[in-house]
Amino acid sequence: MQLKAARPPTESKEYVYVKRKSLQGNACPVARTLDLIGDWWSLLIIRDALDGIRRFNDFQKSLDIAKNMLSARLKGLVEQGILQAMPAADGGAYKEYVLTERGKALQTVIVALSQWGGEFMYAPGEPGSVMVDAKDRQPIRKLALTSADGRLLAPDDVATRLGVEH
Amino acid sequence: MQLKAARPPTESKEYVYVKRKSLQGNACPVARTLDLIGDWWSLLIIRDALDGIRRFNDFQKSLDIAKNMLSARLKGLVEQGILQAMPAADGGAYKEYVLTERGKALQTVIVALSQWGGEFMYAPGEPGSVMVDAKDRQPIRKLALTSADGRLLAPDDVATRLGVEH
Repeated sequence: MQLKAARPPTESKEYVYVKRKSLQGNACPVARTLDLIGDWWSLLIIRDALDGIRRFNDFQKSLDIAKNMLSARLKGLVEQGILQAMPAADGGAYKEYVLTERGKALQTVIVALSQWGGEFMYAPGEPGSVMVDAKDRQPIRKLALTSADGRLLAPDDVATRLGVEH
Repeated sequence: MQLKAARPPTESKEYVYVKRKSLQGNACPVARTLDLIGDWWSLLIIRDALDGIRRFNDFQKSLDIAKNMLSARLKGLVEQGILQAMPAADGGAYKEYVLTERGKALQTVIVALSQWGGEFMYAPGEPGSVMVDAKDRQPIRKLALTSADGRLLAPDDVATRLGVEH
């Protein structure tokens, strides 16, 4: 698809049509997860929240996103139990958006995206942000696919089957 | 956003506007990667390709996606060097879409999404697809965040900094 829609008059950026079909009944957890958080603004908000950002204005500054769009995305992430809206820690007037346990657990997805991007989306020597251990500031290890008995697996060694491992 | 657009007359599914802004110059590899493959049809095609699907009709059957949309997505993934279009292995008339090394390396992202979904998107005992070692059919280990010296890290222990680790 990616049919170009008529450009809204007040916006200079490109718009595309994206089909939305619910995948919540799907047997595949990849499909269910993408259905929930599979648009990139939401994942970038989660990335920023994992980086410690909590306030609307700070998300807005970091993402350079229209306020109404950010507002809709934050609302969605709260409804999905990824973020929690809380009174400001300093007693101020503004709400803070804090990751729930479910939201924090998306760190693995963000790290996987970051490591793939670091490997394939940069010119040699081009600086970019790197995921590090907050303590020693050293890059964390590359995520590895391993079997139940600890063997390192290549992408081709992984298959899917129906099960109730949840 | 998620402004509801007028429904195209031939389609019964919901359409939403999604803003597209290029993030290719961004310092963050999460942003660059999402910009490249951050729509869920593309990621579901990559999931199916990792599962061994190679032909247009088989992707179409698996994904229940409109042909013109699938066609555009496959073309995009080929242009991005994620898939390679090849003559059919059996000498037949149809092209096959095969993952490149760059594409195969997205297995880690798919596994991260699958494991998060398996943990948070299913009722207890509800069956779903599980990522397993192709050899022994046992679920693979949960991806773990580890420091350079091998310590297990919690989501909060991971930070980002600018670097040239690529």
